Amino acid sequence: METLSQNKAFGGTQGVYRHKSTSTQCDMTFGVFLPEEASDGPVPVLWYLSGLTCTHENAMTKAGAQAWCAEQGIAIVFPDTSPRGEGVADDEAYDLGQGAGFYVNATETPWAPHFNMWDYIADELPTLLGKEFSIDLDRQAITGHSMGGHGALTLAMGLPGRFTSVSAFAPICNPTASDWGRKQLTAYLGADEATWAKHDATLMMEQSGFDGPVLIDTGTEDQFLDLLKPEALASAANSRRQQATLRLQPGYDHSYFFVSTFMEEHIAFHADALYAR
Amino acid sequence: METLSQNKAFGGTQGVYRHKSTSTQCDMTFGVFLPEEASDGPVPVLWYLSGLTCTHENAMTKAGAQAWCAEQGIAIVFPDTSPRGEGVADDEAYDLGQGAGFYVNATETPWAPHFNMWDYIADELPTLLGKEFSIDLDRQAITGHSMGGHGALTLAMGLPGRFTSVSAFAPICNPTASDWGRKQLTAYLGADEATWAKHDATLMMEQSGFDGPVLIDTGTEDQFLDLLKPEALASAANSRRQQATLRLQPGYDHSYFFVSTFMEEHIAFHADALYAR
Repeated sequence: METLSQNKAFGGTQGVYRHKSTSTQCDMTFGVFLPEEASDGPVPVLWYLSGLTCTHENAMTKAGAQAWCAEQGIAIVFPDTSPRGEGVADDEAYDLGQGAGFYVNATETPWAPHFNMWDYIADELPTLLGKEFSIDLDRQAITGHSMGGHGALTLAMGLPGRFTSVSAFAPICNPTASDWGRKQLTAYLGADEATWAKHDATLMMEQSGFDGPVLIDTGTEDQFLDLLKPEALASAANSRRQQATLRLQPGYDHSYFFVSTFMEEHIAFHADALYAR
Repeated sequence: METLSQNKAFGGTQGVYRHKSTSTQCDMTFGVFLPEEASDGPVPVLWYLSGLTCTHENAMTKAGAQAWCAEQGIAIVFPDTSPRGEGVADDEAYDLGQGAGFYVNATETPWAPHFNMWDYIADELPTLLGKEFSIDLDRQAITGHSMGGHGALTLAMGLPGRFTSVSAFAPICNPTASDWGRKQLTAYLGADEATWAKHDATLMMEQSGFDGPVLIDTGTEDQFLDLLKPEALASAANSRRQQATLRLQPGYDHSYFFVSTFMEEHIAFHADALYAR
């Protein structure tokens, strides 16, 4: 693992690191913020999965998360959203290929064998974090924005017991029924829709739910609301009596201004769950 | 004036606007955040002047200021750092020409007549803000980063009575004695150093000081510390018994991670002064 940069921030350290990934078979870059408390021993960690077109950097510089993570004494990790580089397949569309990994393991050409973002986030990167940083892997929580909200919800429900709590900002809630989903799941996983179900938060909520608290914020003026389908997830969560807070925030859109506005509350929500474990 | 974007943020509105400027004789773009309270009547305003290479956008998306301005009920304005566009002179160096206006009125070719950033910030933009937004021009404060810290300090001291308070993050403190200054002042104002004195915070502090509180933060690991010369301004402020808090923050560098770390305190500092007027 190589250190690309380290900046002191809010009493802690915001670092950017690169490593050769076995899951994605390319170099991967990620950001980690460690609060001051990490110098005294392992701290809880919050995962932040980013949306379409983002790298590790967007949320790291624009979501305003470090202030609140420092206050709560928790680390936050910002992974990239796909494999990248010259040998890695791509597409001209912004919503397929590099920057649009959708947190699945691709089985189809030309996306396999690089596009294994599920394995990267579920297995490889946590192992690396536990080895290289003062992070307590017994206390993990997860959040994300848009495509990253989809990733957070599906990873949380797909890895029972791993995360204390899950939240999301304007997540893609029902990708098997959305143009943000059907296109990508077809490309990465093939036409057999049976393989898609474990990557759809609404279907997973119907099947199994999440063993912990859920917090989701979506803006009423989100320009992508028809693609996100929060109503599908809300229906599933309510039908199963899932412990959840699902909020529609009046006037807010899909931008980082929306994300940063509610970041303090999301991090406090996760801190409550992390410190209760 | 044209509205380029408006995003709800922290209960208020982050807008971006463009107008034809008479001072700089080109289109100028700026950002304004208005807190929720602005819908009930004019609110105090904080100016944030940005550093070399920045547009209106960098601090607007990365400095984390809106959260604290919303909490304090004050507006914040993010001007651009120079005139821009095809008919506007530029230089290959990052620290001269577009993105590097240095908050002066240029008298020299090829920078005159566009490079009049002093007039733009001191006269034209405040008039426009008072006309177009729910902003109280009797309650203005000013801050900035690096070249923008230089701008904040020199405007605050050069316009007595205008600003209740001035702060800066890693400001260029003594440009007449720095490679971040001598080059630009020569280019914009000519070789006669007598014309430079009213654009050097240290010389102005020696001459007249500031009639209000001053807060300056600089990181001990700032990679540009030799160019910033905080020691010159500290000496001048102490010699004149200026009301001031001058802090060296251990471990911090020149980045927005540094700026955002101390933003809450700077905005609280200005709010105290703004609400006391």
